Amino acid sequence: MRKMIKKLKEVQEKPDFFRRSFDLTAVMPLAEGIIAEVKSRGDEALREYTEKFDSVRLKGLEVGQDELEAAKERVDSEMLRSIKEAYAAIRNFHYRQKRVAWTEEFSEGVFIGETYVPLDVVGAYVPASYFSTALMCVIPAKIAGVREIAVCTPPMADGNVDPCTLVAADIAGATRIFKVGGAQAIAALAFGTKTIPKVQKIVGPGNVYVTAAKMVVREEGVEIDFPAGPSEILILGDETANPAFIAADMLAQAEHGTKSISVLLTDSERIAADVEQKIIAKTDGQNWILLADSMQECIDFANEYAPEHLEIMVKEPIAVLKRIRNAGSVFVGNYSPVAAGDYATGANHVLPTAGYAKLFSGLDVDHFMHRMTLQWLDKKGLEKMKDVVVKLCEAEDMEKHARSVEVRFSTEDY
Amino acid sequence: MRKMIKKLKEVQEKPDFFRRSFDLTAVMPLAEGIIAEVKSRGDEALREYTEKFDSVRLKGLEVGQDELEAAKERVDSEMLRSIKEAYAAIRNFHYRQKRVAWTEEFSEGVFIGETYVPLDVVGAYVPASYFSTALMCVIPAKIAGVREIAVCTPPMADGNVDPCTLVAADIAGATRIFKVGGAQAIAALAFGTKTIPKVQKIVGPGNVYVTAAKMVVREEGVEIDFPAGPSEILILGDETANPAFIAADMLAQAEHGTKSISVLLTDSERIAADVEQKIIAKTDGQNWILLADSMQECIDFANEYAPEHLEIMVKEPIAVLKRIRNAGSVFVGNYSPVAAGDYATGANHVLPTAGYAKLFSGLDVDHFMHRMTLQWLDKKGLEKMKDVVVKLCEAEDMEKHARSVEVRFSTEDY
Repeated sequence: MRKMIKKLKEVQEKPDFFRRSFDLTAVMPLAEGIIAEVKSRGDEALREYTEKFDSVRLKGLEVGQDELEAAKERVDSEMLRSIKEAYAAIRNFHYRQKRVAWTEEFSEGVFIGETYVPLDVVGAYVPASYFSTALMCVIPAKIAGVREIAVCTPPMADGNVDPCTLVAADIAGATRIFKVGGAQAIAALAFGTKTIPKVQKIVGPGNVYVTAAKMVVREEGVEIDFPAGPSEILILGDETANPAFIAADMLAQAEHGTKSISVLLTDSERIAADVEQKIIAKTDGQNWILLADSMQECIDFANEYAPEHLEIMVKEPIAVLKRIRNAGSVFVGNYSPVAAGDYATGANHVLPTAGYAKLFSGLDVDHFMHRMTLQWLDKKGLEKMKDVVVKLCEAEDMEKHARSVEVRFSTEDY
Repeated sequence: MRKMIKKLKEVQEKPDFFRRSFDLTAVMPLAEGIIAEVKSRGDEALREYTEKFDSVRLKGLEVGQDELEAAKERVDSEMLRSIKEAYAAIRNFHYRQKRVAWTEEFSEGVFIGETYVPLDVVGAYVPASYFSTALMCVIPAKIAGVREIAVCTPPMADGNVDPCTLVAADIAGATRIFKVGGAQAIAALAFGTKTIPKVQKIVGPGNVYVTAAKMVVREEGVEIDFPAGPSEILILGDETANPAFIAADMLAQAEHGTKSISVLLTDSERIAADVEQKIIAKTDGQNWILLADSMQECIDFANEYAPEHLEIMVKEPIAVLKRIRNAGSVFVGNYSPVAAGDYATGANHVLPTAGYAKLFSGLDVDHFMHRMTLQWLDKKGLEKMKDVVVKLCEAEDMEKHARSVEVRFSTEDY
């Protein structure tokens, strides 16, 4: 048994074994310091941090119309067409998520229902040059109907923002774009500065400083999407899987950084050995191959691990899919690499990592809306439920609640 | 101008004026201390705190089948029928919220979709004797399909739990019920003890200690519904409103405690004076009447204030309703008192307070589920989007992502 391959049995009781590298403690003081500075000194602190971390002293922090026009000229037509195709797919997918208001006459004279209301102002953090993330964060906010969608993304050393990112954010529907990155961007969105609006919620992935800053502002009442740890893939493959495809997807995952985690779970010794042989010399990242006695063991482990990305490359994928409970996004079959979902199937690529897929969904339209419930009773409707309500009020010692119902049928004044 | 009535103009720039009493700082050390004790000493700490705060030394912390049977015998048949009617209405309402899995062939060979998965283990906090809250917390979890629904509620001094609460929790679908209240219950659910299971999410309202404890465990990675401040009502009433109904609803709100907030917003001096006259001698609670120049001003203020409960008692309620954006639950017309919604319309009464209705929804089925996105491409489907994906990967310097797509159409091995 070589170093990359382990018996699943050895680790199945500790599915977070692979995740030991996700710890924000070390960076928290720096993030807190930056937040305090931005809170007290606003735009000037943003300019200083941008000079320090992005090597450019900015005059204006906001991308102007002229810069946007210039960016459009710099993006070639094939690139623009590709961005627009991704946009169309993402838009199609996320429209399916949008809740529709409903009302129902539950019983005569008792109308109930719900309406859905967009948040008013949100912020999206887009890492440098990740134009696809601009699409993923802004499109669902736009579909929700958010009025102000503020994007923060770090500038390049020449003071400009990557033109593809500007164009993508603009197509997606960003209303304002700021050349600010890192923890300082999160602080600015959370508390507002003279230039950058205070938002209700901040979404989007970032490095450890960005994530640490999001955790800090969350404690101060600014909502976030979810904490982002290192990106990860878990692949379920049986003896029918293609080792070259598995190896390619594991190596692609490693491209997100040395802390990214790629795991193959298989019940086939041959597949395990083939994949190991293909990747062992090509990466020093977090790659693991777990050999199980059965596909059921693999599925159980996957549900406990709750990976950000789950690929299923097995002979009977539907049977496996039906038993999957916890994953950010699922990629089924030999021709569904994560890369396709990252850009062009339309599903969101901002997904819960670090096991949060047991609890959270990926970024979606719901992140940008809240619901209000409604009830509208007429006199007959209330009269019918009067006895029940009064009985229940009184049983909870809520006499004045009971009285508030009875007064509506009383001839005495209140 | 008397003491309860204020000009809206005087406060409209500070809609949180009424909320100055919501501050957890003072109780935080006590909550943190309790949590630390429960974390380290488990059930024994729970027994000690129960003796201290609920004046009873418990042997068993869990409600047994015998106690449940005994409770059923103690609830009279009219009460049982009333609880079941409330249950049916709440169940009907919340079924409407449940998401349905979908798949779509976005283009030939490109299948996309979503499935919705319940959380596995959740906790519900039910304040003493609030059987209606047991219904409101457990029913949506049950509809979501949660496997283990653990209810914590404080015991009475005789060591039993209020029988209506037991019966309601059982009807609603609680799988385990524990006789533990306060911050110690939140700690037990968050971290688990020998008796009480560790849960993924804790829902339900409570006093300041419970809320403080929820905020603490949230920072340690246990999800909560939302912070709960004092309960509140805001009533929009014009000259057609009935002052007796308004007064009754404001006084009912005050029944939740001295920190509860009742506000009437009206453009009618007569209504303001009538309501004031009816309530001024009957309460020393937080009651306010704001006199505005127009209904539009009232609406603008309501949206800024984002009340937990909003009643609309005006001549043209639909015109007003259409402009409401932020409220937990809305009660329309003269015959829709909050008391009806608290028990029997079916809408949830666990609602965001303290202005959180701008951002959060009341408790709902979504709180107990997460979504997984899916994509399943066949070779033809991936081939069609290959050029776009490769182009976009390369533009983001994701060469191995591009390669993971190309390898599937290559004759060379990887």
